[in-house]
Amino acid sequence: MSKIKVPRRPRAETPKGFRDYFGAEVTARNAMLARIAAVYHRYGFDPLETSAVETVEALGKFLPDVDRPNEGVFAWQEDDQDWLALRYDLTAPLARVAAQYRNDLPSPYRRYAMGPVWRNEKPGPGRFRQFYQCDADTVGASTVAADAEICAMLADVFEELGLGGDYVVRINNRKVLNGVMEAAGVLDPADPSRFEHERGIVLRAIDKLDRLGEDGVRALLGEGRKDESGDFTKGAGLPASSADVVLAFTAARRDTGMETCARLRELVGGSVIGAEGVAELEEMERLLLAQGYGPDRIVIDPSVVRGLGYYTGPVFEAELTFEILDEKGRKRQFGSVAGGGRYDDLVKRFTGQAVPATGVSIGVDRLLAALHAKGRVEAGAQGPVVVTVMDRARMAEYQAMVGELRRAGIRAEVYLGNPKNFGNQLKYADKRGAPVAVIQGSDEAARGVVQVKDLVLGAKIAENATLEEWKERPAQVEVARADLIATVQAMLQGDA
Amino acid sequence: MSKIKVPRRPRAETPKGFRDYFGAEVTARNAMLARIAAVYHRYGFDPLETSAVETVEALGKFLPDVDRPNEGVFAWQEDDQDWLALRYDLTAPLARVAAQYRNDLPSPYRRYAMGPVWRNEKPGPGRFRQFYQCDADTVGASTVAADAEICAMLADVFEELGLGGDYVVRINNRKVLNGVMEAAGVLDPADPSRFEHERGIVLRAIDKLDRLGEDGVRALLGEGRKDESGDFTKGAGLPASSADVVLAFTAARRDTGMETCARLRELVGGSVIGAEGVAELEEMERLLLAQGYGPDRIVIDPSVVRGLGYYTGPVFEAELTFEILDEKGRKRQFGSVAGGGRYDDLVKRFTGQAVPATGVSIGVDRLLAALHAKGRVEAGAQGPVVVTVMDRARMAEYQAMVGELRRAGIRAEVYLGNPKNFGNQLKYADKRGAPVAVIQGSDEAARGVVQVKDLVLGAKIAENATLEEWKERPAQVEVARADLIATVQAMLQGDA
Repeated sequence: MSKIKVPRRPRAETPKGFRDYFGAEVTARNAMLARIAAVYHRYGFDPLETSAVETVEALGKFLPDVDRPNEGVFAWQEDDQDWLALRYDLTAPLARVAAQYRNDLPSPYRRYAMGPVWRNEKPGPGRFRQFYQCDADTVGASTVAADAEICAMLADVFEELGLGGDYVVRINNRKVLNGVMEAAGVLDPADPSRFEHERGIVLRAIDKLDRLGEDGVRALLGEGRKDESGDFTKGAGLPASSADVVLAFTAARRDTGMETCARLRELVGGSVIGAEGVAELEEMERLLLAQGYGPDRIVIDPSVVRGLGYYTGPVFEAELTFEILDEKGRKRQFGSVAGGGRYDDLVKRFTGQAVPATGVSIGVDRLLAALHAKGRVEAGAQGPVVVTVMDRARMAEYQAMVGELRRAGIRAEVYLGNPKNFGNQLKYADKRGAPVAVIQGSDEAARGVVQVKDLVLGAKIAENATLEEWKERPAQVEVARADLIATVQAMLQGDA
Repeated sequence: MSKIKVPRRPRAETPKGFRDYFGAEVTARNAMLARIAAVYHRYGFDPLETSAVETVEALGKFLPDVDRPNEGVFAWQEDDQDWLALRYDLTAPLARVAAQYRNDLPSPYRRYAMGPVWRNEKPGPGRFRQFYQCDADTVGASTVAADAEICAMLADVFEELGLGGDYVVRINNRKVLNGVMEAAGVLDPADPSRFEHERGIVLRAIDKLDRLGEDGVRALLGEGRKDESGDFTKGAGLPASSADVVLAFTAARRDTGMETCARLRELVGGSVIGAEGVAELEEMERLLLAQGYGPDRIVIDPSVVRGLGYYTGPVFEAELTFEILDEKGRKRQFGSVAGGGRYDDLVKRFTGQAVPATGVSIGVDRLLAALHAKGRVEAGAQGPVVVTVMDRARMAEYQAMVGELRRAGIRAEVYLGNPKNFGNQLKYADKRGAPVAVIQGSDEAARGVVQVKDLVLGAKIAENATLEEWKERPAQVEVARADLIATVQAMLQGDA
C-alpha cells in the first residue's frame, strides 16, 4: 500500500530560474521590440512565429536514443514515444521551417523572430532559464550583400532606439582566419581534417585574448600555458613565427577598412580561402560605405573572435560603447548586445542540400538594460487617475466619471476595494503611481462640484514645503463637475 | 552490445498539434492584441507576463505523487525531482502571482495578460496544442462594480476593434441559479453537500439546452433521457414542478434588465442566496446603464449557462452576432469569443485566505477570425518595393536605392538571390507581394535613369487588358534617378 501523504498547501513560487515581469517591465520591452520590428519590416523582413515546442529530432542537438535527452534543453517524452522540447534558440526552428516550407517560401527568405527561448541550465544571478531573443536572418542568399544588409539594419536599429553615437558594429570573417591558419601551417586545404585538434586549440586561445592578453595567447599557441594556480594547459605547438601570424591577425585593424583588408591580405599569404575572406570583407566595406555607414558605425575589426568557431564566413558583433559602472563602481564599456554571422549549412541536415544563411541575434534583456542605463526607455506607463469612493451608493456616478476620463483618452479607474477607510484609498493611489485623485463626497455632489488633487505636485511640495514656485499652484482644487475632464487634463499637462 | 543505428535525416516537421505563423498572420494578431491592450491600459489594468513554465504544484491541477502527471498538460520531472509544466491557462499563474506577491501588489490588483498557453490534448482540425489567450482580471475587489467594469471594458474592446453593433455581452449569475435550485428543492442551504449529485445533473442538463432543446433538458431534469441511439441517461429525478422552475430560469429574459430581474426574483422565491444574486444583477444593470451600456451591448440573459458550474457569482459571455456561412454553407451566428465571471477562491489553496476575483478571457484566434470575416483586420503588411539586380557589379548602387527608399519610410529590399535569371527576380517580387519593382541596367545607369514598374497596376491590366481606364496610366515608367523616390511614392499612393 502506498504511503498516505499529509496534504499541505502548495508553495506560491516561480520555478527556480524563471521570473515574472510586471507592468512597465512588460510595456518597455514590448515598445522596444515594436521599434526593432519596424526597422526589420522596412528592410523587407517578414515576421515568423514558430511554436515554443519542437521535436527533439528537429532541434537536432540531441539523439532520440538517449534515455533522457534533456541536457541543456527542457524535454519530455510523449505517450507515442516521441521526444518534444522547448526551443533553446530561434535559429533551430528557422532551420526546420526553411526545410519544411522550402517550396513555398520566397527565396531569398528574410525573416525576423522575437520571443522567449528556454535553457535547462543552472540558474544564477541575472541568468534565467527563459529569456527573450530577437533575431533577423536571410536564408538563401550567398552574396555578402546579405551580410552587409544585416549589419546596416543592426546599425539602423540602434539609431532608431536613440543610441546613435553609442554603438559600433564590428565585422570579421572566418575565411580570413582559415587563411591565417593556412599561413600558420595548421590548415591543409588538401586535407581539411589534418590539424583539426590544433585548430581547436588556436580558436579557443584567440577567444581568450581579452582575458589572457597577448602573452597568454602566445603561450597557448606554442607549447602551453601554466596559470596562476599552477595548472598547465597544453598548447597547439605552433612555432613562434606561426604564432606571430595568428596574433598579427587579431591586431590587424588599421585606420580604414581598406587598409585593414590590405594588412589581412598580407597575412593570409597565398591561401585561396583567405583571399576569398578578404575579398568578402572588402565587398562589405564597399557596400556599407556606399550607403553611408562609416567606420564610426560599422568597422572591420579582426580582433572580433566571438563566433569565429561557429560561423562559416562574415561574423558580426555589436557593442555599445558608452560607459557604465560595474558592481565594484569601476567604469567599463557596456559591451556586446548582439552578434551573428554567416552559417551555410542551415537546412542541410534535413534535406541534404546546403543553403546559405546569415543573420543576427539581439540579446533583448541586455539591450533593454542599456536603454535604461541611457535613459532611452519611453516614459513608463503612467499610473491611472484614481476616482475615490466617498459614498458607496453613488458608485454609478463615480463610474460615469472614469468613463468620461477614458473617453478623453485619460487612463482612469475607480477605487474598487472596501471604501470605508479613505486613507487606504489614497495609499492605493500612491501605490498605483496615480498622478491625480478625484474626490466627491455627498456634500460636493449636492453642490455639483468635485475635488481634484494633483498628487505629483503634492509629492513635490511635500519634498520641499518652503519652495516658492509651488505657491501659485494649489495641489488641490474644487471645480464644477462639468469641468472635471478639463481640470484633470490641465493637471496632467502641468505635471508632464 | 547495442544495436548500431543507421543514421537517417531528421524530419523537418512541426510537432503534431503545433503550427507556425507567418508574416501577416503574426502582424495581424499583434496589431489586434495591441489595440486590446490599449483599452485595458485605459481602464487602469497593468500587464503581467509570467513565464511559460510553472511548477506542477503551483498549477495545482495535478498531484506530485502521480508517476507522470501530464494528463492535459505538458509536464516533465526535473533532476531535483520537482515536476515542471507548461501553463495551460493564464488564470493559474495569476493565482500563483497573487499569492506570491500579495504584500507588494496594489489591492485591488487589475492585471491583463496575453500570451500562449499549452494543452496536452489530442490535436484535431483547428484544435492546436499551443494557442493564445488574452485575459483581464481584477483581484481583491468583492463589489460587482468590478464585474460591471470587466463587461464594459469588453464592450469597449469590441468597439475599438470596429465590431460596434456586431456584439453583445450577456450576463448571468451563479447565485441566481443556486436560488433556483433551492426553489426546485435540490439545494438545502443548511446542508450544502446534500443533492450535490442531482445539482451536477441539473448543471450538465441546462448546459445542453442549445443542443437538446427544452424537451431534452426536461427529460434529464426528470427521470432521464433516451437518445437517438437508444442509450439512456439517468436524470436528476426532479418533479415536473421543479423542472418547470429550472427551465423558467433559462427562459427568464424579458425586454429590459429590470424586468428580467423581477422575473428572476419570482423564480428564486424565498432563497437568500438567490435574492443576493438578483440584487447583484440589478446593481450591475444600474451601473452599466449609468455608463451608457444599454441592452443592445450588455444584457442580462439567464439563458447563459456556460461557466455557471465553474464561477461563483456573475458570469459573462461575449458573442458576435453577425452571420457567417458554416462548412456546409448554412448561415449561422459567429458566436462566442470571450467568457468570464467571478471566482472567489483564487489564492485560497496557497494562503488559506479567500480573495475575491473576477475576469474575462478572450479567445484570440476566434476573435481574429471574426475580424477577418468582417474585413476588420488592418491592411496586411504590404510587400516591399523590390530593387532588381541587372548588373551584379553595381550592387552598391542598388543598395543605395533601397537605403533612400527606407529613409523615406518605404519598405524596400534589393534582390539578394542569384541575379542571372531576371525572370526569377520578377517571380520573387510577385511572391513577396511587391507593389513596385525598380530596374536599372547598365544602359539606364549610363543615362542616369531608372525603370519603375507598377506591379499592382500591371496585375490589374493583365486581368482586363481592354479596360479603358488604364490607358492614361502606364504600368512602367522611365524616370531620372533623382526622381526615383517621388515616383515610387506616387505609385504606392495610386495603388492604395
